[in-house]
Amino acid sequence: MTTIKSVKVEIITIGDEILIGQIVDTNSAWMATELNTAGFELAQITSVHDDANHIIEALEMALKRADVVLFTGGIGPTNDDITKQTLCSYFDTKLVFNDAVYQNIERLFANRPNYKMNELTKAQAMVPEKCTVIQNEVGTAPVTWFDKAGKVVVSMPGVPYEMKRAMSVEIIPRLQKQFETPVIIHKTVQVYGYTESALALKIAEWESNLPEYTHLAYLPNSGVVKLRLSGFLENVLALEFVMNQQMDLLSQLLGNAIVAAEDIPIEQLLGNLLMVGGKTVSTAESCTGGNIAHVFTSLPGSSAFFKGSVVAYANEVKENVLQVNSADIEIFGAVSQQVVEQMAVGVRKLLKTDVAIATSGIAGPTGGSDEKPIGTTWIAVCSDEQVLSREFRFGKLREQNILRATQAALLLLKEIV
Amino acid sequence: MTTIKSVKVEIITIGDEILIGQIVDTNSAWMATELNTAGFELAQITSVHDDANHIIEALEMALKRADVVLFTGGIGPTNDDITKQTLCSYFDTKLVFNDAVYQNIERLFANRPNYKMNELTKAQAMVPEKCTVIQNEVGTAPVTWFDKAGKVVVSMPGVPYEMKRAMSVEIIPRLQKQFETPVIIHKTVQVYGYTESALALKIAEWESNLPEYTHLAYLPNSGVVKLRLSGFLENVLALEFVMNQQMDLLSQLLGNAIVAAEDIPIEQLLGNLLMVGGKTVSTAESCTGGNIAHVFTSLPGSSAFFKGSVVAYANEVKENVLQVNSADIEIFGAVSQQVVEQMAVGVRKLLKTDVAIATSGIAGPTGGSDEKPIGTTWIAVCSDEQVLSREFRFGKLREQNILRATQAALLLLKEIV
Repeated sequence: MTTIKSVKVEIITIGDEILIGQIVDTNSAWMATELNTAGFELAQITSVHDDANHIIEALEMALKRADVVLFTGGIGPTNDDITKQTLCSYFDTKLVFNDAVYQNIERLFANRPNYKMNELTKAQAMVPEKCTVIQNEVGTAPVTWFDKAGKVVVSMPGVPYEMKRAMSVEIIPRLQKQFETPVIIHKTVQVYGYTESALALKIAEWESNLPEYTHLAYLPNSGVVKLRLSGFLENVLALEFVMNQQMDLLSQLLGNAIVAAEDIPIEQLLGNLLMVGGKTVSTAESCTGGNIAHVFTSLPGSSAFFKGSVVAYANEVKENVLQVNSADIEIFGAVSQQVVEQMAVGVRKLLKTDVAIATSGIAGPTGGSDEKPIGTTWIAVCSDEQVLSREFRFGKLREQNILRATQAALLLLKEIV
Repeated sequence: MTTIKSVKVEIITIGDEILIGQIVDTNSAWMATELNTAGFELAQITSVHDDANHIIEALEMALKRADVVLFTGGIGPTNDDITKQTLCSYFDTKLVFNDAVYQNIERLFANRPNYKMNELTKAQAMVPEKCTVIQNEVGTAPVTWFDKAGKVVVSMPGVPYEMKRAMSVEIIPRLQKQFETPVIIHKTVQVYGYTESALALKIAEWESNLPEYTHLAYLPNSGVVKLRLSGFLENVLALEFVMNQQMDLLSQLLGNAIVAAEDIPIEQLLGNLLMVGGKTVSTAESCTGGNIAHVFTSLPGSSAFFKGSVVAYANEVKENVLQVNSADIEIFGAVSQQVVEQMAVGVRKLLKTDVAIATSGIAGPTGGSDEKPIGTTWIAVCSDEQVLSREFRFGKLREQNILRATQAALLLLKEIV
């Protein structure tokens, strides 16, 4: 089987916002996913300030490694944006007036009667002479496309929806015409109950026998490790066959430790299972403090299976609202099997759901003891038929304990739905 | 007044996750903010794959421009992680066994009886001979620190909480000892009720008169805009004086729109106010789905003021648990002043707290109407003396609506505590 040479792309983001921590660079993650799906390999992301020398240096380095360089940002109307001038000087050309761009700007302003075009906006219609100008229907700054010795340099806006439209509608289709890309297939499984290293040992032999046109990535997240196998080949059917074969072998190796055979959040997986079964869920949360409810309700359409929660942070809420026996809290403590099971049963009854989850643990940074150190967490799930509970020891960090307890609770619920 | 030369830092992130779009690089934004606050200038962020040649090239380029290079990621126990070996070869040294690292790993595993140490984990105790090893108390991979001709190269884990601890407790304090950074003073106010651009117009004249050794950043976050004024000067007293003067002028301009005169999360501000007043709070959440409870309980020590919540996603939970009148839900709808006020009063009574918050809104992506479009949200707060409620129109994006409603609810509560 033959592989074809991958087409390498680099992204250069321009502007202060990312470098002073003002914004998180979500553009690059989106672009990375799209490029990857379209069969391109993203080789580097570089973020630099609005500084001409630094921009040129980054571009020259990128062109040494990659076939395509995509600039985002730095092309707004204000003085600090210098990318257009910098590219003009790099490609030895000058700015000229472009009537189509000007008409696009006029059209955009006609739609927004509260805003007036000013001279800075008009200047957006000045574009490099030696480039392909691609209209930006949703913003004033056009996309500019430069060809140079078989390589491509594109400059596009940094505003997310302008960038996304330009990439989807114009840039990726044009790149796919110009370059021959291999087929890429990704297969993901999510594994629970192993540390990253224990998992690596468990599957070492399988991993070492993977074909050379595949790549395996370990992606740990709050107790769950995602294993993603990527394959690159010319023949899509052959690749699909080999990838499925490898994933079958992996499934045999890991068995029940595989909690999901696709790349979706665990809460979405649970939501799907509940909806398919026509079941509803409620939660009684102490240490997770509402986070399980929050991850469920972050899913669009979650009202189809999620009815509500009682966040029982104070013991009196556990007693008065969830009907936990106060003597049991006294004798066994709030972080105990007895209490967490009563919480689950109590909330299921109160909110009239098919199944319920309860958590009680010591999130930290204080409250631990020798017997129950910080991170000790009891989780229970119940249905009309059974109550299932388990003790966990997470770490010392509050934020991490909340996230891990949330994942563990969802996965425990999976055992009964 | 004289300024001193800035100390330049670059970040290099290593690993596939960012370059295939699997994760958004939130680490770099956090690091950028912290470095900036500590007086360093972040000159470039570079993301590369686990590829030795590419890593070395990125390092060499960064060392030409910057005084400090910070690597994150690529130091896990699995085969794809090669940063440690790559740095060994670059700094012409070899891996040696480090007993302190080994003991740290043993300690971490002793706390997690479900997991066993294996040979890959043990290999984490192999560290480059010519470097300063900094213990990582919360993970198995240590931080390694290399000095080279007055410049510094540090390699740290990419796991966010491990990275954050290493940066805050070890790396930034050590860098501040080693390099002379200018005095930087930051003053932050948090402003509510303005868009970023409306705020920019409101304070345009004040902003244009700021001294040239200051820099103003707009940091919008779910409806609140943080204005951070940074000043760089040799003389700390002079700087402090000028900064205070400017912030006084800003306060006069913005008045009550300033909801906090310091850079702390709004939930922490509320927690402090409640604790000072000896008051407790509960929440009844529909559209926010437990997120207000979650942000409160993410604060260490929140059990001192937060007793619990009822997440009332289904209407029957509003009726049965919070005693909302079912006729009112029928007549006015669940997203209405009548219902949200009853939810607040109901949860305050049920959980026996001094004050309470309630939310009910249409988070989207479905459920909107002409009269109540997606984003319509009612929020109520109450005490034993009063009930205060307000209607908001957020946007079309579910995630953003949940975050904005959370912020708005906290700020409404601030009006009565």
